[in-house]
Amino acid sequence: MVLAGLWAVLLWAYVLGHPKQTTSGGEDMRNCSVTPPYLPVTAVNTTARLKDLRQQLEANGLDAYIIPDTDAHMSEYIAKHDERLRWISGFSGSAGNAVVTKGKAALWTDSRYWIQAERQMDCNWELHKQVGTSPMSTWILAEVPAGGQIGIDPFLFSIDTWKSFELHLQGSNRSLVSIKDNLVDQVWGTERPAIPSEPIFYLQEKFTGSTWQDKVTGIRNQMQKHTKAPTAVLLSALDETAWLFNLRSNDIPYNPFFYSYTLLTNSSIRLFVNASRLSSDVLQYLNSDCTGPLCVQIEDYGRIQERVQEYAAGDVRVWIGTEYTTYGLYGVIPQEKLVEDSYSPVMVAKSVKNEKEQELLRAAHVRDAVAVIRYLVWLEKNVPQGTVDEFSGAEQVNKFRGEEEFSAGPSFETISASGLNAALAHYSPTKEIHRNLSRDEMYLLDSGGQYWDGTTDITRTVHWGIPSSFQKEAYTRVLMGNIDLSRLVFPSSTSGRVVEAFARRALWEAGLNYGHGTGHGIGNFLSVHEWPVGFQSNNIAMTKGMFTSIEPGYYQDGEFGIRIEDVALVVEAQTKYGGSYLTFEVLSLVPYSRNLIDTSLLLPDQLKYLNQYYETIRQKIGPELQQRNLKEEHEWLLENTQPLAYSSSSRAHLPTSLTLLLVAALVATLGQSL
Amino acid sequence: MVLAGLWAVLLWAYVLGHPKQTTSGGEDMRNCSVTPPYLPVTAVNTTARLKDLRQQLEANGLDAYIIPDTDAHMSEYIAKHDERLRWISGFSGSAGNAVVTKGKAALWTDSRYWIQAERQMDCNWELHKQVGTSPMSTWILAEVPAGGQIGIDPFLFSIDTWKSFELHLQGSNRSLVSIKDNLVDQVWGTERPAIPSEPIFYLQEKFTGSTWQDKVTGIRNQMQKHTKAPTAVLLSALDETAWLFNLRSNDIPYNPFFYSYTLLTNSSIRLFVNASRLSSDVLQYLNSDCTGPLCVQIEDYGRIQERVQEYAAGDVRVWIGTEYTTYGLYGVIPQEKLVEDSYSPVMVAKSVKNEKEQELLRAAHVRDAVAVIRYLVWLEKNVPQGTVDEFSGAEQVNKFRGEEEFSAGPSFETISASGLNAALAHYSPTKEIHRNLSRDEMYLLDSGGQYWDGTTDITRTVHWGIPSSFQKEAYTRVLMGNIDLSRLVFPSSTSGRVVEAFARRALWEAGLNYGHGTGHGIGNFLSVHEWPVGFQSNNIAMTKGMFTSIEPGYYQDGEFGIRIEDVALVVEAQTKYGGSYLTFEVLSLVPYSRNLIDTSLLLPDQLKYLNQYYETIRQKIGPELQQRNLKEEHEWLLENTQPLAYSSSSRAHLPTSLTLLLVAALVATLGQSL
Repeated sequence: MVLAGLWAVLLWAYVLGHPKQTTSGGEDMRNCSVTPPYLPVTAVNTTARLKDLRQQLEANGLDAYIIPDTDAHMSEYIAKHDERLRWISGFSGSAGNAVVTKGKAALWTDSRYWIQAERQMDCNWELHKQVGTSPMSTWILAEVPAGGQIGIDPFLFSIDTWKSFELHLQGSNRSLVSIKDNLVDQVWGTERPAIPSEPIFYLQEKFTGSTWQDKVTGIRNQMQKHTKAPTAVLLSALDETAWLFNLRSNDIPYNPFFYSYTLLTNSSIRLFVNASRLSSDVLQYLNSDCTGPLCVQIEDYGRIQERVQEYAAGDVRVWIGTEYTTYGLYGVIPQEKLVEDSYSPVMVAKSVKNEKEQELLRAAHVRDAVAVIRYLVWLEKNVPQGTVDEFSGAEQVNKFRGEEEFSAGPSFETISASGLNAALAHYSPTKEIHRNLSRDEMYLLDSGGQYWDGTTDITRTVHWGIPSSFQKEAYTRVLMGNIDLSRLVFPSSTSGRVVEAFARRALWEAGLNYGHGTGHGIGNFLSVHEWPVGFQSNNIAMTKGMFTSIEPGYYQDGEFGIRIEDVALVVEAQTKYGGSYLTFEVLSLVPYSRNLIDTSLLLPDQLKYLNQYYETIRQKIGPELQQRNLKEEHEWLLENTQPLAYSSSSRAHLPTSLTLLLVAALVATLGQSL
Repeated sequence: MVLAGLWAVLLWAYVLGHPKQTTSGGEDMRNCSVTPPYLPVTAVNTTARLKDLRQQLEANGLDAYIIPDTDAHMSEYIAKHDERLRWISGFSGSAGNAVVTKGKAALWTDSRYWIQAERQMDCNWELHKQVGTSPMSTWILAEVPAGGQIGIDPFLFSIDTWKSFELHLQGSNRSLVSIKDNLVDQVWGTERPAIPSEPIFYLQEKFTGSTWQDKVTGIRNQMQKHTKAPTAVLLSALDETAWLFNLRSNDIPYNPFFYSYTLLTNSSIRLFVNASRLSSDVLQYLNSDCTGPLCVQIEDYGRIQERVQEYAAGDVRVWIGTEYTTYGLYGVIPQEKLVEDSYSPVMVAKSVKNEKEQELLRAAHVRDAVAVIRYLVWLEKNVPQGTVDEFSGAEQVNKFRGEEEFSAGPSFETISASGLNAALAHYSPTKEIHRNLSRDEMYLLDSGGQYWDGTTDITRTVHWGIPSSFQKEAYTRVLMGNIDLSRLVFPSSTSGRVVEAFARRALWEAGLNYGHGTGHGIGNFLSVHEWPVGFQSNNIAMTKGMFTSIEPGYYQDGEFGIRIEDVALVVEAQTKYGGSYLTFEVLSLVPYSRNLIDTSLLLPDQLKYLNQYYETIRQKIGPELQQRNLKEEHEWLLENTQPLAYSSSSRAHLPTSLTLLLVAALVATLGQSL
């Protein structure tokens, strides 16, 4: 699934600024410049909510209050319980920040969400289109008088974001004030969805790479070896705790996590969670009835700050990953007792999968390929009849995945986008608003599944009619990028950002590009976007055993969108002269679209790679389909994985001498035959 | 010329750690573990010097003193006047740092210089092999007692290096003390070479891209447009002032610069320089007899700190480039009056050459190609006779360059390296120590010239006998990297670091790599390494009009070294679908080594590109050689730029169907002919 970082957002804006841009929608957007203002039915009335919030500002002596889009764990997806930004502003996009002052309310979001914001917000709200702490700070400095105070909830801000706001306000005679009780929560009241409380369960041994005891021991070994000798590791990200204890639940949409923190010291383990969610079986699994170094002591989720503060009073050093720790916890640990890295040792350990975890992820990808192939065959039959739309299609692929063994739902909201909708990278259809699938349009499906053994994410783009030559060229160049990065051999410990451009070269050559990142890590029944693996500037170096998506694309605004995404495992490469080199092994095993590939553009090595990949699909998915008696799907597979032949109009120009020889030989042959 | 950044140094260490490593030398190195210690004749006796320096430490209440390798302008090359590190330690390598305490003396340098350090230092000195402020600080913390003071000359440390040392010492109860009068200078005494004082001259109008008045106006326009409204720009790097005023002199080896600073305000221009070096003609050229906004006021070089401090007392904001400003100047400007960027606006403006500057650099490269071709022809005749060695060869190429119009000497010390010496990236022969050139060994020449119209830098690697198949493969893969990066099409404003790996892909594929950067900016009769252009992480984004070297290599330690370096201009690319794209136009116009190219490894597109490049060389250099009646060289040019034919054993495998067709046709032909 496509992931937008700041860099990607900027590029995206650039891409959207390209020719052939058409504005989609318009009629359903608010118009605040007429009297009375025009508001679409999708707009949310926030007048009363803002009035209540401003009373809170008044009560706390604040001139402004910042409302971000995340939770206390810096989660990418958040529970409804944490959708404060949506409730106060009406805006439901997944990225945005708001500031409410005594007289104004403003929202900042990137270009992907501008139209959505204009549809969902009422005229109490200003929309700002430059994102980041800098434009927000500039606005705050203009709106808040000297001597003013800006309130923030320290549990909703990363250390870096907090520091960035502080830096911008420095010397301005305006100060950032930490307000522990969230002000939106105070006015949200009984409308606010309850905190998730479903049972927390542990994974069967066959679905885990190692026991939680082994994982704890591994992290403690890292603590011992560390030059700064940390005495504890504090885990804030939800997937860190879920991974460490092999525990899962269902608090966050698409992510099998649960609200939690862990304080792992060299002699104790403290898991902060709502204890009522743990059955006696789980408590026993965690050895919670003892206090030794391999006993998990359960503490109340709400006491994390207090307990960390108490622990930090001793002769200790607490190791944290700054990217996922909030200022609320960071602030209670004295500076000299902090051991800071961008990512905690658990985050880094989790990113490198051991042999068993690799096998689990492989197996999940085989079943996932079956589900996707079933869907592609189903589409081929049903689309021509005009009975499929984006939403019913999404439901269908989710259904096919649900029928696979160990299925635990989709790993993100299915992106099922036809025609021009696919040019919006984060588009998802709804029951109310969607487009029909048609033989005359391209269709993009970016979807994935959660399985007890793994998480999947794959994108295929198809066309059931006759694609234009431009569509074929764009598709083929995206494919060339996918292939060039997938087959690249690179030295161990190379960072993804160093090699990312190989996925773009074939597009660049023709003056084409895409405005999002090229890939992200992926977990074992964990996050579909698992940091810190990937090709962006803040991702860590590639290591054998990491999993990443590879997903170049091309988007023709107002017309179509193409993305080809596979999940790949980082493996050792065998080179002619040895050395420590890596490459990728692609684990997503679904054929690309035959009618969209212009083989004359492919280099011989790319074609060879492609045919090898098809052979691998046949070997790994073929028997699976046969075994399940999915005959039609098996035939489809064989048809769609036939070796592609080299095109005679190849760009890999034949050497003149050879061509002449060929022509001469042909002429001679013809001459003799006549 | 190859440039080693920190990243490159790390990679270099990695490459040197690869198999087939042999230790070169050994007999000429010091041995401090025997009694009495063994010292080679190259070692410098530093006992008395260190004793004198320690008296200075005592007098200043210091426990340690840090001696870096640069000057007050963060210059890459320094004048003999500034070779403090060399004088105190004996070590003459271009990269290193020393610390002297009451009882110890220690030098830190990277792997390129370890052997040299062991040959040049006596046993007063420890050699440390981990570079950077972190290992130095660790050593200092171990050697300096609590409460101790570490002295440094604030004019020899960049802002970042100073801050890095401060950070490492923070909370350690040891402090960094700024000592304005350099302690090494105090003990160096009369032995110290005088400060350079040759006349400073201005360039003729035909050798400049624009007048200094236009450049000043351009920089002032940038000041006006800047959101932080700086009132002045402070220039510390020597090439900034040289470029701004179109002035040159000869203070620094290979760099036509002179000791200077510039304080350019919105209403005045102050040039800090030794006034006695300016003739009345130059003073008139600079309008130095007035005080208006386009009059240059001459101030004494030594008063820069004082004057900046005075200026900064007013209601001003001073714009600096932090990479080239020392802590000595940074420290006297109040924090709130600083406008900081990594590079000053002059540094950035200088990196983008206007049309005229581009033409000047092109012209210099045409003449430079003639000199290099003359040398290659000369080598072909003389090497087989056994009469050429590395040093006489270097002299010869310098001589040929010296005969070119507008020549102003080499742009760096010629790297003329035969056989295993070429595996040392920074090797240069001396009159005393050098190797004979031979038909049985590869030879690497990395050299460049200063001309009044431009600076050049080119590397060619040759073999006059029969190269091994591995040498051919390595050479060809280096060439493929050079070609792949040179012909790359990439979006405007792409950073070099994003595309650098294209120069490595062909090597990586076979398990080969190189341990240095891939290129650097280059000036118009300025630095051969002109920042901030290049492919490293701290280089700025590529823009039309920039010049950069492209120089992949391969080094087989103890055997041979290969580097293929060209200087290229960043130009607009015309793509099929438009958009704002860039590519490179190679300006170095000397053919590669025919007998080292294995055409069967080349992709068709690479071969096509190569033959186009050869055609360009013929068109641009051919007439120049003919006009000068250099017949032998012209014949050599034609021979060495003949289109290369496609090899039948090409890796670009022929499609099976086509091969079959060809074979069938041939069989048919033969059948009919018999």
